[in-house]
Amino acid sequence: MKNPTPRGYCSATPKILVVGSIAFDTIKTPFGKKKEILGGSATYFSYAASLFTPVHLLGVVGSDFPAAQIEKFRKRRIDTSGIQVRSGKTFRWCGRYEKNLKEAKTVSCALNVMDKYSPELPEHYRNSQYIFLANIDPEIQLKTLKQVNSPKLVVCDTMNHWVKTKLPELKKLLKKVDILLLNDEEARLLTGQENLISACRKIIRWGPKTAIIKKGEHGVILTTGKNDFFFTPAFPTTGVSDPTGAGDSFGGGFTGYIAATNDSSAANMHKALIYGAVVASFTVEDFGLKALEKIGISNVEQRVNQIKKMIQI
Amino acid sequence: MKNPTPRGYCSATPKILVVGSIAFDTIKTPFGKKKEILGGSATYFSYAASLFTPVHLLGVVGSDFPAAQIEKFRKRRIDTSGIQVRSGKTFRWCGRYEKNLKEAKTVSCALNVMDKYSPELPEHYRNSQYIFLANIDPEIQLKTLKQVNSPKLVVCDTMNHWVKTKLPELKKLLKKVDILLLNDEEARLLTGQENLISACRKIIRWGPKTAIIKKGEHGVILTTGKNDFFFTPAFPTTGVSDPTGAGDSFGGGFTGYIAATNDSSAANMHKALIYGAVVASFTVEDFGLKALEKIGISNVEQRVNQIKKMIQI
Repeated sequence: MKNPTPRGYCSATPKILVVGSIAFDTIKTPFGKKKEILGGSATYFSYAASLFTPVHLLGVVGSDFPAAQIEKFRKRRIDTSGIQVRSGKTFRWCGRYEKNLKEAKTVSCALNVMDKYSPELPEHYRNSQYIFLANIDPEIQLKTLKQVNSPKLVVCDTMNHWVKTKLPELKKLLKKVDILLLNDEEARLLTGQENLISACRKIIRWGPKTAIIKKGEHGVILTTGKNDFFFTPAFPTTGVSDPTGAGDSFGGGFTGYIAATNDSSAANMHKALIYGAVVASFTVEDFGLKALEKIGISNVEQRVNQIKKMIQI
Repeated sequence: MKNPTPRGYCSATPKILVVGSIAFDTIKTPFGKKKEILGGSATYFSYAASLFTPVHLLGVVGSDFPAAQIEKFRKRRIDTSGIQVRSGKTFRWCGRYEKNLKEAKTVSCALNVMDKYSPELPEHYRNSQYIFLANIDPEIQLKTLKQVNSPKLVVCDTMNHWVKTKLPELKKLLKKVDILLLNDEEARLLTGQENLISACRKIIRWGPKTAIIKKGEHGVILTTGKNDFFFTPAFPTTGVSDPTGAGDSFGGGFTGYIAATNDSSAANMHKALIYGAVVASFTVEDFGLKALEKIGISNVEQRVNQIKKMIQI
């Protein structure tokens, strides 16, 4: 097995369930262009989290989805029995990044089989302890959550689009999640607060016990309330080629580490932030999943040790 | 004395010399407007650094500068014998900040007595060990440095304006400084590198042993070369009223701590970053120097302890 459960992690490995998009992306950045490469929030998450622990993947693909890719998922300890195959085309996204690589501009987006997708959990998915609601319609996130028996930790990601178009559903969902993960611009849009510290506090009042704001090259803020903040920098890398999936990979590294250690204490969450930041730093160094395909847990641990030295006084 | 040398700091306190602007600022932010309040890079620096150790202040003011302010400097252990008083008006700056508080837009700027100012160091300034070249014309920074006997550490700040108008002088200066301090946009402009990690490395190749990039709400990066990076977050504050002088205050807290502990080792520099970040966090909470006037070293230490908990795993 390519990624055995690393030493030091809990041996009775709890399972992670992720729901989100599985897509083909066409991406243009100042460093190149790739056409119809595998992407989607659940895909990036699964590749990242499976470095740490097995993953139950829930999503939908079209009849054009290659069987060889299903096999690739399986080889990474990603359970694909929750992938619905519907007749039609897989979700397509086409995006472009400017020189500063900060924000993706959506050039085109075709939901295809994702349109009217309703998640149905295989029986053995329902006892998953760690749930990651990757970026997808909040109604799908809610429907997924309803089918889980008694999760230990629910982490939720979202994006600008849902804040703009499905705010009531998103707010309803927030009451049921433990951790909300979102980027700085999304946090500002969602809360109406320019100051990110104020934005964090507002999110906490809406339900989640913990808010995590992803700031790209500027790292991550975690808060659990009024004066409890924790900061992690991004791993310093100059080889950024394609930021697509960085946030999902962060989520995968973060949740994967928590699930693998079976410890969602504040202290362990702080460590998990570093794992998330490191996994994301690999993702952005190549297009699509190429960098994540090449690394193992030892590469992650190496950067984690480096980053620890960059913050400890 | 309001700010005695705090316990734990070196008792044979070495002196800091700062050269920079002394100004009257008119500032408009989303949180208010202030007319002709005391400002300038050397002023903010001196107020911040004098929390830690005495400061030799070098600069120029006009005949309109109030004697009462000179007395205020003295009460803070800021030696004013290096302030030239020339006939004419003191430097005036008028700036405006948008909602995101990120960048000051200069509305007007009148050099007045700063025009053709040539620094002359009083004899007892020349043996200063810690030199801070605050934001001012790089030719003035160079002239100041030439009059110092054998400095232990030279820290230099600058701004976009000098990168655009005096690049050869700035590059010449960089060969003679130990640490270059600048903000993220200035670093990008100076190096032509969008990626801040690449920008850091380029700066190091031009002379300074250490580069520090100030990123406002996103904290600070320090590097000494290829793979040696250190990160400090900004102190999380929601009460930002006026960002003017934040960078100079950071420089004051940083250099002040190093000078007071008389230790410019890498490990101590990392600690000093936190002191810089904390002092800057007070500055931005009120207009002008108002917040710095109210605090003492114990307030600083309190936030330093808080911030340590926000980064230690």
